[in-house]
Amino acid sequence: MQQAVHSLRIAPRGRGLTEITGAVRDWIDKQEIDTGLLTLFCRHTSASLVIQENADPDVRADLEAFFEKIAPEDPQRYKHRTEGPDDMPAHLRAALTQSQLSIPIVDGELALGTWQGIYLFEHRRIPHEREIVLHAIGE
Amino acid sequence: MQQAVHSLRIAPRGRGLTEITGAVRDWIDKQEIDTGLLTLFCRHTSASLVIQENADPDVRADLEAFFEKIAPEDPQRYKHRTEGPDDMPAHLRAALTQSQLSIPIVDGELALGTWQGIYLFEHRRIPHEREIVLHAIGE
Amino acid sequence: MQQAVHSLRIAPRGRGLTEITGAVRDWIDKQEIDTGLLTLFCRHTSASLVIQENADPDVRADLEAFFEKIAPEDPQRYKHRTEGPDDMPAHLRAALTQSQLSIPIVDGELALGTWQGIYLFEHRRIPHEREIVLHAIGE
Repeated sequence: MQQAVHSLRIAPRGRGLTEITGAVRDWIDKQEIDTGLLTLFCRHTSASLVIQENADPDVRADLEAFFEKIAPEDPQRYKHRTEGPDDMPAHLRAALTQSQLSIPIVDGELALGTWQGIYLFEHRRIPHEREIVLHAIGE
Repeated sequence: MQQAVHSLRIAPRGRGLTEITGAVRDWIDKQEIDTGLLTLFCRHTSASLVIQENADPDVRADLEAFFEKIAPEDPQRYKHRTEGPDDMPAHLRAALTQSQLSIPIVDGELALGTWQGIYLFEHRRIPHEREIVLHAIGE
Repeated sequence: MQQAVHSLRIAPRGRGLTEITGAVRDWIDKQEIDTGLLTLFCRHTSASLVIQENADPDVRADLEAFFEKIAPEDPQRYKHRTEGPDDMPAHLRAALTQSQLSIPIVDGELALGTWQGIYLFEHRRIPHEREIVLHAIGE
């Protein structure tokens, strides 16, 4: 049984979904794990992780619009305003999605379905470099 | 330390929650793992996983109604409409719940609480066969 | 490779977020795991787990207010009312957040970001003792 860890750094251009499936697969391919478990952990409270359809880009646009609607930028709603009007909605959108995802490794491949992509969901307007910790265990 | 993987196939009758606790427990019982970790991974973007109360069926009905309300079928809201009016709401409901769950195994049993059941949450109206990948590690 | 499990018991004073980062770190420190994976599992359907900002307490107040708004106490909306008006909203808020979190252990420390705290999110008004199962694997 072996383990590996890696820090994946992503610089999204701004708010919304950035696909990281390719970068994650590239790292997994180097680990030579046939059966195991990959865990992705987002080290931020205003960005998060989500698995979504990787085919029609309209899905991503609709998903972003949905989260803007249910957790809107509206300073009058929030006490926490010191970091800008997009900060508290960012925390809410992070709470509604995932800080962490674990995906089995089967026959040397991530067990993602055909239409599943892994996305970093940036919730702030100003670009931030983000760090996702990858942990793999298996053999 | 050992590992096991399994593909659990579920054919829900339509939209809503289908309990899979029994099928998952049956598989875990065969692995003879005393201490470990089980991960369930849903290979779809229009179905998801949720842990909910397994006692009163009204809880499931209320949960389904809640998700129909916050992520409604309303084609005018969405750009992604080619796969039917229930497809984009399905992706949103999947994003708000889980693609993956990990549950410790303690004394040979899943560490679920007394009232916790594991459910596949089907979000499409037309029945689809769904695949949940199970991964267990432990000894 | 080693494993450890522990039952962490928490008695929140009532509804809202209770930080458990310190108690979790104390237990991890005793395991002497340099590289590994920690999983926290909440054994309840009316309490859940969330990673949130640990700096400004206003973030927690805003988060609590947000969940009270999107999944309100309003008995007319719900069929499941036998356990009180706060029970069904508790299940909905649990479904929207996490029953489980997995966090890599890197260089003997949890890979939490600087501003990340781990919180038990109690959704019932009357205080309940809650149990979080901790599972660690690594070496």
